[in-house]
Amino acid sequence: MVPHLTTALTGPLQDLERRILERMPEIERWLRTQWQEHEVPFYASVDLRNAGFKLAPVDTNLFPGGFNNLNPSFLPLCVQAIQTAVERVCPDARGVLLIPENHTRNQFYLRNVATLESILRQAGMRVRIGSLNPEITQVTKIDLGDGNSLTLEPVQRNGRRVGLYDFDPCMVLVNNDLSAGPPQVLMNIDQPVVPPLAAGWYNRKKSHHFSAYSGVAEQFAALLGIDPWLIDPYFGVCGKIDFREQTGEECLASNVSHLLERIRAKYEEYGIDEKPFVIVKADAGTYGMGIMTVRDVDDVRDLNRKQRNKMAVVKEGLEVTQVIIQEGVPTFESINEAIAEPVVYMIDRFVVGGFYRVHTSRGKDENLNAPGAQFVPLAFESPCIPDLREPAGCAPNRFYAYGVVARLAQLAAALEIEELAAKPPAETVPA
Amino acid sequence: MVPHLTTALTGPLQDLERRILERMPEIERWLRTQWQEHEVPFYASVDLRNAGFKLAPVDTNLFPGGFNNLNPSFLPLCVQAIQTAVERVCPDARGVLLIPENHTRNQFYLRNVATLESILRQAGMRVRIGSLNPEITQVTKIDLGDGNSLTLEPVQRNGRRVGLYDFDPCMVLVNNDLSAGPPQVLMNIDQPVVPPLAAGWYNRKKSHHFSAYSGVAEQFAALLGIDPWLIDPYFGVCGKIDFREQTGEECLASNVSHLLERIRAKYEEYGIDEKPFVIVKADAGTYGMGIMTVRDVDDVRDLNRKQRNKMAVVKEGLEVTQVIIQEGVPTFESINEAIAEPVVYMIDRFVVGGFYRVHTSRGKDENLNAPGAQFVPLAFESPCIPDLREPAGCAPNRFYAYGVVARLAQLAAALEIEELAAKPPAETVPA
Repeated sequence: MVPHLTTALTGPLQDLERRILERMPEIERWLRTQWQEHEVPFYASVDLRNAGFKLAPVDTNLFPGGFNNLNPSFLPLCVQAIQTAVERVCPDARGVLLIPENHTRNQFYLRNVATLESILRQAGMRVRIGSLNPEITQVTKIDLGDGNSLTLEPVQRNGRRVGLYDFDPCMVLVNNDLSAGPPQVLMNIDQPVVPPLAAGWYNRKKSHHFSAYSGVAEQFAALLGIDPWLIDPYFGVCGKIDFREQTGEECLASNVSHLLERIRAKYEEYGIDEKPFVIVKADAGTYGMGIMTVRDVDDVRDLNRKQRNKMAVVKEGLEVTQVIIQEGVPTFESINEAIAEPVVYMIDRFVVGGFYRVHTSRGKDENLNAPGAQFVPLAFESPCIPDLREPAGCAPNRFYAYGVVARLAQLAAALEIEELAAKPPAETVPA
Repeated sequence: MVPHLTTALTGPLQDLERRILERMPEIERWLRTQWQEHEVPFYASVDLRNAGFKLAPVDTNLFPGGFNNLNPSFLPLCVQAIQTAVERVCPDARGVLLIPENHTRNQFYLRNVATLESILRQAGMRVRIGSLNPEITQVTKIDLGDGNSLTLEPVQRNGRRVGLYDFDPCMVLVNNDLSAGPPQVLMNIDQPVVPPLAAGWYNRKKSHHFSAYSGVAEQFAALLGIDPWLIDPYFGVCGKIDFREQTGEECLASNVSHLLERIRAKYEEYGIDEKPFVIVKADAGTYGMGIMTVRDVDDVRDLNRKQRNKMAVVKEGLEVTQVIIQEGVPTFESINEAIAEPVVYMIDRFVVGGFYRVHTSRGKDENLNAPGAQFVPLAFESPCIPDLREPAGCAPNRFYAYGVVARLAQLAAALEIEELAAKPPAETVPA
């Protein structure tokens, strides 16, 4: 089942894409070297935008949901990769405690947890699901509405170990983005926690991530001999924002206007006939909340109450006090006339699948991670291994470039985690 | 595309299969421990026979052909696994020299080489194909008749390194079973050669392999609390055989009669209503040559000239001087009424796929690796991960038991290689 993808690639990206495919051995080697120096995140998903002239990550999730949206034919790849990932953490592992998000009513998310559980079980692990939700005080079986069910159990702490009734796991795998802070029950325990608590959204900033990404993109661009801008979106940051009180608007306006100017210059350099835009996002936001498309500096000066309220609060009721203003990358991909953006999944250092996030009522310059989004799994290009050499009937592997850029974002996340883990959380809040 | 497999499983195997599925975490953990102690073969394929009451390997190939017979949806699994396998040999690898069999006219085999090349290339390696065939004195492009082609180049030796014109590889990957002996050009070189030359068929004996396998099967059976016979075929050996001169017939006859007796006893123990038979095979033979089904001890006493000639010589014209007499495992699997046996592929410690070898004109007690055999790729059980828990619409993963037994054979091969590599080839020829 290969989705019919209408790509309309023009300008430098076709060059870029071909260059990435041609340099595959060097790229894979370079990535191998990076993973010798930096600890690869256990898993990650990366949202990409493909503008034709530019291919860039726009969000990197270290606690990925959506495994249920992958094409089932990717699942064996997930199983194989997770075997390597778990072995890295505890070579003798049999027991994995999976910690999901607290919501017990979002069946889409719960199916993701069930898929993860199944992947781990297929890899030969004993896996049980421990909930941090205070409402889960006993073994709770949840029907997933697709014939499957999920069993949540209350997490128990025993000295410096965490587990469940009659279950002492070897490792704790977190699938909860920790927006609300590091859970007490998981702090100072002997078992390894992956990803580390320091990688939670209470502690991460998109701006840190993209700053790390810029460094990675620069190195990678040097390897390929290309302009880093082709894979890296410009961005700026404003701290001390209060949307409700309308403080910090000047910073926002000047950043927007500066970014629009820089983008315009690049568009001219490459002869790109597009209208520049930027995306304003909560610097610590997730779930596609607190996101706004800005096409003109006046847009941020005239926010009405509704817009301000929308921007002011993200997941778990957290106030937005800092925003990232990021170059918008228009998406040139559509499926059945709906705008589509690729989401790429990694486990350990392996690309294990992806899907298109599709939205029928959003434009090419808007956030698609919003209610109404649908998911179209990517399929393998049967019946041949897609390849640059294009033997009879085989298209070149367009997915390869996506897999490379997604792994660059994963590498940036690795650098980001190193930094976060090195300093206590308090210090990571910028002035 | 799931082939319709008519399985007719009776007696203890359903127990065995279920027990294997239930104990998956312990099994995977046990295998992990084994691979910490023993070097996993780079790749392998294992022919299995499933009798319903018994599931056992009958041949283990350390230089597997047939990658072209895998379902294309397995290929990404191969790519991911080979990345791990190559990294283990040379962490900084970019160049792999692939050494195929010498035949240049067997398009089926050459498509296997092309598939391997493609898998390596997709894993980010530079790969070129070096031929040992003395007729290949220059770059030779061979059309594969399917729109693809293969480029063979003469292998060059430069001091203690081997390579091709303008190509100094990091490792040498052998896909030639070395029936004719270790190639001079690959001896005493600085680059790693995998599998090691000592694993070539000039040096291997099926009896060594199955003797190592018996040890592995015994340990594994103890882990599961089962009779090792359920996964291990009985066997005996006769050296000093000369089929043309009719010497060694007495040894053959007494082994056959002894084995038939032991099998009969087991059949009685388990109430199996089958006629025991044994397979006589050249102890160093490959390619399904020099193989004979024996149902009665008189069968080996009255060999006619044609039968004797057939048994006397295997690949590369090697004389058969030693045979293994192995318990026959009838196959209970058939596809469209043709007898079928599963072939399972491993790369590194990962099961990466398999297919059914099918033969329309052979019986359930005969060798299927013969002219006229066809291949039916195994497909993934979409749309769910097959699992013991059998959620709605998901059959239990019958392939898992195959993957386990195949890996036991791979482990036996690892022990066998350790032993072969430890002593000089001459000493491995038994008296």
